[in-house]
Amino acid sequence: MTTPSDRGIHLSTIGAQWDSLRVPAAGVHLDSAAAGRSSRAVIDTITEHLHAEAAHGGYVAAAARADDLAATHAAVATLIGHDHGDVALVGSAQAAIRELLRHWRRPLSIWVCPTEYGPNVADFAHHGHTVTTLPVADEFGHVDVAATEAMLLKRPPDVLHICHIGSRTGIVQPAAELVALARAAGVVTVVDAAQALVQIDSRTGADIVYGTSRKWAAGPRGVGFLSVRRSPAAPPLVADLPAPAELESAEAAVAARLGFGVALRQILDLGPVSVHAGLSAIGGHLRTQVSAVDGWTVVEPSDEPSATTTLRPATDADIDVWHVRAHLLRNGFVTTCAESWRSPLQPAETVLRISPHLDVTVGDLDAFVDALQRAHPANAAPA
Amino acid sequence: MTTPSDRGIHLSTIGAQWDSLRVPAAGVHLDSAAAGRSSRAVIDTITEHLHAEAAHGGYVAAAARADDLAATHAAVATLIGHDHGDVALVGSAQAAIRELLRHWRRPLSIWVCPTEYGPNVADFAHHGHTVTTLPVADEFGHVDVAATEAMLLKRPPDVLHICHIGSRTGIVQPAAELVALARAAGVVTVVDAAQALVQIDSRTGADIVYGTSRKWAAGPRGVGFLSVRRSPAAPPLVADLPAPAELESAEAAVAARLGFGVALRQILDLGPVSVHAGLSAIGGHLRTQVSAVDGWTVVEPSDEPSATTTLRPATDADIDVWHVRAHLLRNGFVTTCAESWRSPLQPAETVLRISPHLDVTVGDLDAFVDALQRAHPANAAPA
Repeated sequence: MTTPSDRGIHLSTIGAQWDSLRVPAAGVHLDSAAAGRSSRAVIDTITEHLHAEAAHGGYVAAAARADDLAATHAAVATLIGHDHGDVALVGSAQAAIRELLRHWRRPLSIWVCPTEYGPNVADFAHHGHTVTTLPVADEFGHVDVAATEAMLLKRPPDVLHICHIGSRTGIVQPAAELVALARAAGVVTVVDAAQALVQIDSRTGADIVYGTSRKWAAGPRGVGFLSVRRSPAAPPLVADLPAPAELESAEAAVAARLGFGVALRQILDLGPVSVHAGLSAIGGHLRTQVSAVDGWTVVEPSDEPSATTTLRPATDADIDVWHVRAHLLRNGFVTTCAESWRSPLQPAETVLRISPHLDVTVGDLDAFVDALQRAHPANAAPA
Repeated sequence: MTTPSDRGIHLSTIGAQWDSLRVPAAGVHLDSAAAGRSSRAVIDTITEHLHAEAAHGGYVAAAARADDLAATHAAVATLIGHDHGDVALVGSAQAAIRELLRHWRRPLSIWVCPTEYGPNVADFAHHGHTVTTLPVADEFGHVDVAATEAMLLKRPPDVLHICHIGSRTGIVQPAAELVALARAAGVVTVVDAAQALVQIDSRTGADIVYGTSRKWAAGPRGVGFLSVRRSPAAPPLVADLPAPAELESAEAAVAARLGFGVALRQILDLGPVSVHAGLSAIGGHLRTQVSAVDGWTVVEPSDEPSATTTLRPATDADIDVWHVRAHLLRNGFVTTCAESWRSPLQPAETVLRISPHLDVTVGDLDAFVDALQRAHPANAAPA
């Protein structure tokens, strides 16, 4: 197992600071696209509030932290370019989209990117909405912006729903461009920022943005947000939505909401631009490094502005991604085996998803590449 | 403020044990119908898991606690008389009913008790279901079982939804009798056990039961459950529901779910029958004591088998319940001002809701009655 002394320097200039805020990782955590590592301040905030709830009563304790809960809303708003009064806190990103769909009663036409998250597609179908997949511009699954513009001029949908970064890979969709085009066509825009928030700039101009605490923000699990910006000329699908206070779940893990606020405060203090740049650079470094590993090809372009990096087994390589993920975990490297259900509108494949945060070091990645190489059947020691 | 030394003896024989598991209350907590006081073990479990998530990764940490998460399901099942495989964990009681309603697509006829929880009524209406309020047998709002039986024979509904104990008062509906009658008539039965779980016996025989962690179970906020028992001849409304693993929210505050399990384990160790008896006796004692306070009348019969006790201002008493609640809180007594929205099918009124748990002592209630008396306008000191 790696220890701080042999991990080498951080890949990001703010990596040491990010790292110092956290409890040491038990191994090498390369799985922020699943769940980030919360800071000690986040955990302490939650613990302290649980004690306050037990001592003073849950609602009395919450009332005493009203300003801090408002600060959580404000921090979300800052990161997505909305107003603090637009934001509702809910239990998860999935709870957010389901709350939205609960209010959209008539069947809608919804356009999505090819990298759309599978459970979202299922939820749209469940509610009787018609889903159209936008055309791709390249082998990576980036949406063809020019083709989308032509489609918008011809027959615009009710809603453009953009999963900014999907769940299977680190491909970043051109959300801001798509939002601008859709807005000009009078189409309501929704951005799923579950993987985007904190990883990349999430100020896309969308009417509605939702996401989660637990991934790149490294807040606690069990918190998400749904934010609706009501512009003066908002169409009924936006204007008729209930007020944020009604969209917000009344029953809540208040302690976790406070923890989310602390996590976001730490990111705002580090500087979101620095965080985005750091994560993007880490993605570039990681992709270059793993491209040399036998038996795999990197899914993303090396300069894709995200940290999430995925590896596709070569067709002639006898690689079972689940086995590799398990092998890596036994050696202390936390990754995800990302299957087709995460991105069902793309060609089916299972990839190894590696999603380091700012605490990753040169030594961590060297050790990871070494472990990945040894996971190859040709290099594997007999079981 | 009261301190342990001057609080006197506990009203329940297991009160001292319940009390010793918790951090000391800052005042006198009489508000378990809002949120119970979590034990130190619950809080420590949550904190430890948050650390494990930060060190090992959220999903690795969850996988390591799979047995304990299964134990949470099993403990819920034991308390509601379902099988452990029936239980799905969700974010709250409201998330549970909304998840259920998400799957019931056609308009249904739903019968409810007069004490039905307001937000449930709104959710039924939102989904286009027709709500019928069952006839009352008495001034307290208990359902008339015989009249319900006659109605069932004449024209049964699709669903009988029983809010076992409502949110405004401590009135307990005859859930088991109603479930038996409905079952005989082929009607699907759903019990909202949010206020009932742990406060009273929640094994009613209902097909579907849902509730929350944070009230009488004294688990953390942000956790609820939805349990569906699939009997061999279950009607489509039950049989066609997704499996529990699909009803369970995929994104979750896993730490809080573990904490809920610890809270339930402590209740099972104390003995649910003892807990129910203790809380019922506390309710009886409290009602007798507050019935002597000028300007108020007790809403529940003194022997209602619940702990929640509510006070109605006398019509000729110039009492503002919100002011009284605030006065009590300033003096360290946590209660709730329960307004009409909690129970909109009953005559409108605002009551003072007092909901002590097993940790309440003779001294706590004496001090409360004293504070309540002093809150009366006739006795109030000039501001």
